[in-house]
Amino acid sequence: MSEKPASFSKGEAARKTKKLENTTMNRSRKFDFLIIGGGPGGTPATMALGSAGKRVLLVNAGPGLGGTCLFEGYIPSKIFWETSRRLQDIRDAAAFGINIPEGTVTPDWSVVIARKKAILTGRSEGALQTVRKLPGVDVVMGRAMLLGPRRARVAPASGEEPFEVEFGQAVLATGSAPHLPPLPGIDLPQVLTSEGMLEIDHIPESLAVIGGGPIGMEMAHIFHGLGSRVHVLEMAPRILGPIDEELAIAMEEISRRKGIELSTSVNVTGLEESGDRITAAYTEEDGSTHSLSSERVLAVTGRRPVVDGLGLENTSVRHDHGGIVVDENLETGEPGIFAVGDAAGVPMFAHWATAQGLALARHLLGQPVSFPTPSVNTDVIFTIPEVGIAGLTKAEAEREGLEVEEAKYPYKIDGRAQISGHAEGMLKFVFEPPMGRIVGVHILSEGAGDLLGEAALIVRKGMTVREVASSIHPHPTWNESFGILARSIMASST
Amino acid sequence: MSEKPASFSKGEAARKTKKLENTTMNRSRKFDFLIIGGGPGGTPATMALGSAGKRVLLVNAGPGLGGTCLFEGYIPSKIFWETSRRLQDIRDAAAFGINIPEGTVTPDWSVVIARKKAILTGRSEGALQTVRKLPGVDVVMGRAMLLGPRRARVAPASGEEPFEVEFGQAVLATGSAPHLPPLPGIDLPQVLTSEGMLEIDHIPESLAVIGGGPIGMEMAHIFHGLGSRVHVLEMAPRILGPIDEELAIAMEEISRRKGIELSTSVNVTGLEESGDRITAAYTEEDGSTHSLSSERVLAVTGRRPVVDGLGLENTSVRHDHGGIVVDENLETGEPGIFAVGDAAGVPMFAHWATAQGLALARHLLGQPVSFPTPSVNTDVIFTIPEVGIAGLTKAEAEREGLEVEEAKYPYKIDGRAQISGHAEGMLKFVFEPPMGRIVGVHILSEGAGDLLGEAALIVRKGMTVREVASSIHPHPTWNESFGILARSIMASST
Repeated sequence: MSEKPASFSKGEAARKTKKLENTTMNRSRKFDFLIIGGGPGGTPATMALGSAGKRVLLVNAGPGLGGTCLFEGYIPSKIFWETSRRLQDIRDAAAFGINIPEGTVTPDWSVVIARKKAILTGRSEGALQTVRKLPGVDVVMGRAMLLGPRRARVAPASGEEPFEVEFGQAVLATGSAPHLPPLPGIDLPQVLTSEGMLEIDHIPESLAVIGGGPIGMEMAHIFHGLGSRVHVLEMAPRILGPIDEELAIAMEEISRRKGIELSTSVNVTGLEESGDRITAAYTEEDGSTHSLSSERVLAVTGRRPVVDGLGLENTSVRHDHGGIVVDENLETGEPGIFAVGDAAGVPMFAHWATAQGLALARHLLGQPVSFPTPSVNTDVIFTIPEVGIAGLTKAEAEREGLEVEEAKYPYKIDGRAQISGHAEGMLKFVFEPPMGRIVGVHILSEGAGDLLGEAALIVRKGMTVREVASSIHPHPTWNESFGILARSIMASST
Repeated sequence: MSEKPASFSKGEAARKTKKLENTTMNRSRKFDFLIIGGGPGGTPATMALGSAGKRVLLVNAGPGLGGTCLFEGYIPSKIFWETSRRLQDIRDAAAFGINIPEGTVTPDWSVVIARKKAILTGRSEGALQTVRKLPGVDVVMGRAMLLGPRRARVAPASGEEPFEVEFGQAVLATGSAPHLPPLPGIDLPQVLTSEGMLEIDHIPESLAVIGGGPIGMEMAHIFHGLGSRVHVLEMAPRILGPIDEELAIAMEEISRRKGIELSTSVNVTGLEESGDRITAAYTEEDGSTHSLSSERVLAVTGRRPVVDGLGLENTSVRHDHGGIVVDENLETGEPGIFAVGDAAGVPMFAHWATAQGLALARHLLGQPVSFPTPSVNTDVIFTIPEVGIAGLTKAEAEREGLEVEEAKYPYKIDGRAQISGHAEGMLKFVFEPPMGRIVGVHILSEGAGDLLGEAALIVRKGMTVREVASSIHPHPTWNESFGILARSIMASST
C-alpha cells in the first residue's frame, strides 16, 4: 500500500486498536462513509475523507491495514527481491575489483523471514496509527455485509457482537485473490499460490512456475537468484502478457542467459505427487508431451476480484467475472455505492487502487477531479533487471487510433549503465511524430521502476519530445537516458 | 560527457583519427563554426551543428573527446564510487540474510583501474566515431588560438604543421582546471588534486581531504568505503556549500556515523612531509592549532575556467576570475564568438555545459530557443547515500523574491526505503503555498540522482503540487515518495 505513516511502538498499536474497537461499539452507528477494505485503495480514501472532517467507518478483513499489497504482495515479494538482487551483485563482485572467496556466500532464509515480519508489522501498525489520528474515523478489523443501499452489518474479527450501521455513501475496496485453474492435482500441498510462496519457510531446491506473467516472472527471477533451479511454463507464445513485444523478447533472452528455463506455448495438463516432489505434465505446441519434476510448483494464473459475502445481492450493485461494474466516476449500479482497485477489475495494481481511491475521495467531497485513465497508468515488474512501463505500447496507441512512432536507446552504450555493470536492456519512447506528445515509456533495466517517476509525469501531462529534451537531466545518472533519447529523436527529425 | 555514442573497435578508432587529421589538412580551411573544446559542452554542440549540415571544425586539447568530465571527473569517479558502494552493500549483507565469512572480502585496485581504462577508452573512441559520421565535421586533436574575430591557428597534437582557419562563428568550450590555494607545502608529491586522485595506483591507508564541498565529500565517502581512514577539513561552518542546510547537516551526521572525521570552520595553514607521510597543520575557530598526519592529502578547493593560450587578447572577448564574460545568449564581447560550460563560469556541471551547448547550437542555427537558467539546474553529489538537487533551496527562492514554503518526507517511514535497507535521508519540496508551483526538489537518499529526472521536469516546467500528486507513481519504488509528499501537502492545506 502506498500511504506511509509515522512509525511507533508495537505495544501502543495494540492498545489503540483495542480502544478503537470499543469506541466504535459505543459511538453513533451513523457514518458519512463506509469503506470496506483497508488496502491501498480503501486506506488512502479513508484518510482523505477523514482529513476533510467526515465521519468514516473503515472495515478491514485482513490481518491489519495494508491489504494484499502489504501482506501478500508488493512489499513481501520486494523484501525477497532485495536479498536476491544483493546476492546477484555479490556473485558479480569480482568484475568490480572485489574479491570474495568462492563458495563462502550462503543465504540464511530465517533472517529474510524475520526481516519481512518486522517490516510488515511496523508498516501495518503505522498505517493504523495514522488513520487513528483522524478524529472522525473509526476502524473495525472484521467483515462488513451490505444489508441494503444505506445499511450494513459489521462483524468484528475480535468475536465481539456484530452490529448494524447506517451510511451516506460506501466504497467497496475489497481487492482480489489468486485464482487457480481447475487442473488435476492443483490442490496438492506442493502447489503454492503467489501468496503461499511469500510464506515459504525455505528456499526450494527447484521450482516450476506455471504462468509467465509479471508475478510469475518476478518470482522466477527472485528464486533463481536465491539459488533455486527454476522452469517457467507459459501458455502464451511469449512471457509478460501485453507488454511491449521487444521488451518481452529481451527479457526472455536475459532470463535464459541467467539460467532460468522458459517454455512458452505450452499447456499444463496435470500435477502429480512423486515422493516428496511434484511432477507437472505439459504439452508443447507440436503436440509432444513432457514432464517436469520439482520440489515446489508456483501457480500464478491470474487473480479474481473479491465480491463474495459483501451482500451485493441486497443492493443494485452488479458484478461479472471482471469484478464490480462501475461507471466513469467509479459509481456502481447502486447510486451512492462506489468501487475502487482490484475489486473493480483491471488494471490490478496497488498504485492504481491508490490513484482511484484518492480521486474518488475528492469526488465524494464535491471537489473537481479528473479520474485517472488506464492509458496513463504505470507498472513495474520486479524481475532482475526490472521492467518499467508508463502509458501505452505502440500497438495499444494504434488501437486507440493514434499515429505514433517508437524510438529506442540501448543501455549498452550508456555511461551510467556501463559504470553500474548493468549495461543491458533499453529505453523506448512511443510518441507522435515528428517530435510531439510522448504517450508511452518502456524501460528494461536495473532500477527501471525508479525511472518511472519522470515517465509517469510525461504521459500523465502529455509532454512532448522537445519538453523532455529541454529538461536538465543530471550526469551521469540513469535518467540521463531520457534526455539523450529525446534529443536523438529531435536530431533525426531536423 | 553526456552524449552516448555507439561502441566500436579500438584499432578502427585509431585509423579514423589519422585519416581525419589528414583530411583536415587537405580540405578547405573555411568553416561555418569553430568549436574549441570537445567536452560535454563542445561535443554535443558540434554534433547538433554537424547534423544540421554545417561545416564544423572541432579542436580538442585533451586525450580524447569527453573533456574533464570523461577523463578526470564524473565518469572515473563514479567507477570508483560503484566499487565503494558495492563494498558497503557487501558489509551490510548479513542484515539481508546473506552470510559472508568475516575478513574474507578484499578490494583489488588493479581491477578497478583496468575497468576505468576500458570504459574511458571505449566512450572516448565511441564519441569520436559518432562525430566522425557527420560529413561536415572535422576533428583535430590539438590546440586552437584565436588570431582575430574570424581567424584561428590550429596546432595538431600529432606534431603536424600548424595551420590557419577562417570561421563564421566560434564556440569556446575549454572547461576548467583544479585551482589550488597558495599554501606552504601544496606542491608536495603527497598532495593530490581531484584529477590526481583519480589516477592513484592504490587505496591509501589514510586520506586528509582539504575542502568539504561536493567533490571533497564524494571522494571522502568513496575512499572511506574502500577502506581509507578519512578526515575532511572544511573552512566554512558546514559542508557542501550552498545546498539546503538541513540536508547538509544530515549529511554531516551520516558521514560521522560512518566513521568519516569532519572538522568544519577550520583554516589549513600548511603541509609538511614527515617520512613517507604528510602532516596538515590547521587552526580551529577557537584559535587552537592541530596537526593531522596521513598518507595522502586531497586538495579540492575549487576550479578555474581555462582561458590561457586561447588568444582572447586578439579579440574583444573579455574574461575575469569567474571565466569568459557572456550575455544572455552566451555571446562574448566579440560578436559571433560564444562560450559555454565551465569556461563561461558557474554553475560548473557537465550536464549544464551540455544544456548550454545544445541550446546554443539551436540559437546558432536560427531556431527559437529558451536558454536554461541556473534556477532549473540539477545537481547530484555522489556521496553514499547521494544528494540530488533540482531548482532552488528555500533561501535561494526567497532571495529571488518568491514566497515559498517547504515540506519534507523522511525516508525512514518509506516502504521501498525500508526494504532497501537505506531508510535514511529525506525528500523536500520548496513550493509556493498552498499547493502551487514547486521551485525546488532536494533529496538525500540512496539513488537520489536517479530520482532527479522527475524533479528536473517539475522545476523546468513549473509544475504544481497538485500536478505531481495526480501523477501515478508506481508502488513500491523510490519515486513514490514524490506522490506521497505532494499528497501530504494537499491534505494539510485542505
